[in-house]
Amino acid sequence: MKTNHSLSTWNDGAVKSAILDFIARVTKQGGADFVPPAERIATFDNDGTLWCEQPLQVQVFFLIDRVKELAAKDPSLKERQPFKALLEHDLRTLYTLGKQALFELIFATHSGMTEEEFNRIAYDWIATATHPKFGWLFKQCTYRPQVELLGLLRENGFKIYIVSGGGIDFIRAFAEDVYRIPREQVIGSSTKLRTEVQDGRPVMMKLAKLNSFNDHEAKPQNIALHIGHRPLLAFGNSDGDLAMLRYIKAGAGARLALLIHHDDAEREFAYDREFRLSPLVEALDKANEYGITVVSMKRDWKSVFADVDTRKLKGTAN
Amino acid sequence: MKTNHSLSTWNDGAVKSAILDFIARVTKQGGADFVPPAERIATFDNDGTLWCEQPLQVQVFFLIDRVKELAAKDPSLKERQPFKALLEHDLRTLYTLGKQALFELIFATHSGMTEEEFNRIAYDWIATATHPKFGWLFKQCTYRPQVELLGLLRENGFKIYIVSGGGIDFIRAFAEDVYRIPREQVIGSSTKLRTEVQDGRPVMMKLAKLNSFNDHEAKPQNIALHIGHRPLLAFGNSDGDLAMLRYIKAGAGARLALLIHHDDAEREFAYDREFRLSPLVEALDKANEYGITVVSMKRDWKSVFADVDTRKLKGTAN
Repeated sequence: MKTNHSLSTWNDGAVKSAILDFIARVTKQGGADFVPPAERIATFDNDGTLWCEQPLQVQVFFLIDRVKELAAKDPSLKERQPFKALLEHDLRTLYTLGKQALFELIFATHSGMTEEEFNRIAYDWIATATHPKFGWLFKQCTYRPQVELLGLLRENGFKIYIVSGGGIDFIRAFAEDVYRIPREQVIGSSTKLRTEVQDGRPVMMKLAKLNSFNDHEAKPQNIALHIGHRPLLAFGNSDGDLAMLRYIKAGAGARLALLIHHDDAEREFAYDREFRLSPLVEALDKANEYGITVVSMKRDWKSVFADVDTRKLKGTAN
Repeated sequence: MKTNHSLSTWNDGAVKSAILDFIARVTKQGGADFVPPAERIATFDNDGTLWCEQPLQVQVFFLIDRVKELAAKDPSLKERQPFKALLEHDLRTLYTLGKQALFELIFATHSGMTEEEFNRIAYDWIATATHPKFGWLFKQCTYRPQVELLGLLRENGFKIYIVSGGGIDFIRAFAEDVYRIPREQVIGSSTKLRTEVQDGRPVMMKLAKLNSFNDHEAKPQNIALHIGHRPLLAFGNSDGDLAMLRYIKAGAGARLALLIHHDDAEREFAYDREFRLSPLVEALDKANEYGITVVSMKRDWKSVFADVDTRKLKGTAN
């Protein structure tokens, strides 16, 4: 095992040992659990696994800002559901309006433009948008122990994919910059595309039609489609990741499935069952039965964020 | 440019120069056309571009052998269309039965099993199946100049994808062995998948339902879905590749779109407009207008196949 990164941002204990032991076993030439580099695939959920998803997922803030822009051009949206509820941060009403309303919001802001136009919008937004509680850029809200783990895995020949319920084009706009994960190693929710020729130039139009909502059972299915073999290691934090974690554990040989439990109200947030957008219930209850390693943020992470001391900033955030 | 491979299996001329010049330009640090390695993506069609597709695509021979196996278990298939026509090599009737019949054959042989079971079947078949005319293994029917080009591109930091109308799982069973292209860099036609739990183990069942038929406009759309940026270079040989070639040419900066013309009856086959399974008509007619470089197999390739001298073998093949 190569160990320029030795998980110094993780606390010593059973979880850190399990990760280091696993990497050592699958990379040990001639060992019983050796896996050739071509099969060393790791898949990570993004929201709540690689970066903070509270009080809402980052993409929801993007959605709100985009709807604000649309409402500036077309003020009638302010009186029309589901836009009204979103603009008023009235989540209770939004939940009542159901899944169809959510898709209406997503399609209004994530379709009707080319993939390249959307990429520019998302790229510009993520460059300056800040977390409402911490006050730092969203892209600084990545978890330091996870970024170190990505580095350790890469050093040991792993190819790392993001497998997120978030929009594939949204994540691609920052994955290389924020995680050093190339665009083609991002799997996410997607709209259907249509080829249009504009000024003699073929472009991909994002349509207001769902291609794949990459959550729950869709995660292993899209892993099978995009990657074509079972990852050795997967990391998630909610019930939406359970199917992926079970899928990778069922592969032959050594496998490691990890689940973050957000139990750290002091340094980040403490939540699980009650977080309606992405609850953690069944995955926590079944972790033991399915052989999933639960990571306690409070117990297992020496630090949480990379560049900043959360406790100092919490009081000063807007 | 790194040049362990200098395209020694290509004849000197405008096409070879265009390829070498292109690679030199996009890899020249500080040059006007320099492209960082992360964006050096190349996409290759498979049938007729990387290996021989005559008298029929390799996967059609796989299909015939699989239907024979099914008919051995259920002899009534021999009297039922479209199975009867396929078993009797009666292509004329097959074409009359249309696209629906083709899908019935594909689903009968490519679904109702797990991805891992299918992979084993395809892997075992490709290990021994031989070309009916040449008499060598199908996996020896790869084009030597193309394999050399893949090597040259890899040496120069390109990540190479196969983008084929063939089945994604079929190609994944041999892409690493035959082309050194990893499973996750294969894009192809696919069925829908369903997760099933067998003996407590989640598996991906291949369903008798089309997910994507990766030809024509679907090629750039699946490139956008799987890769997320426009390739710098693409290589095809039929009208099914035209949308991909136009798409990559429309990216900013230097791009190279290549189209093989099979005009070499002596060393391989000569065909274009009349090949019903995968005709070359519009792409050839429009190549000049769209800036696509036409490669003549006869003029531009010094040799065609890797391990064998075609002319000696042609007489002895079955």
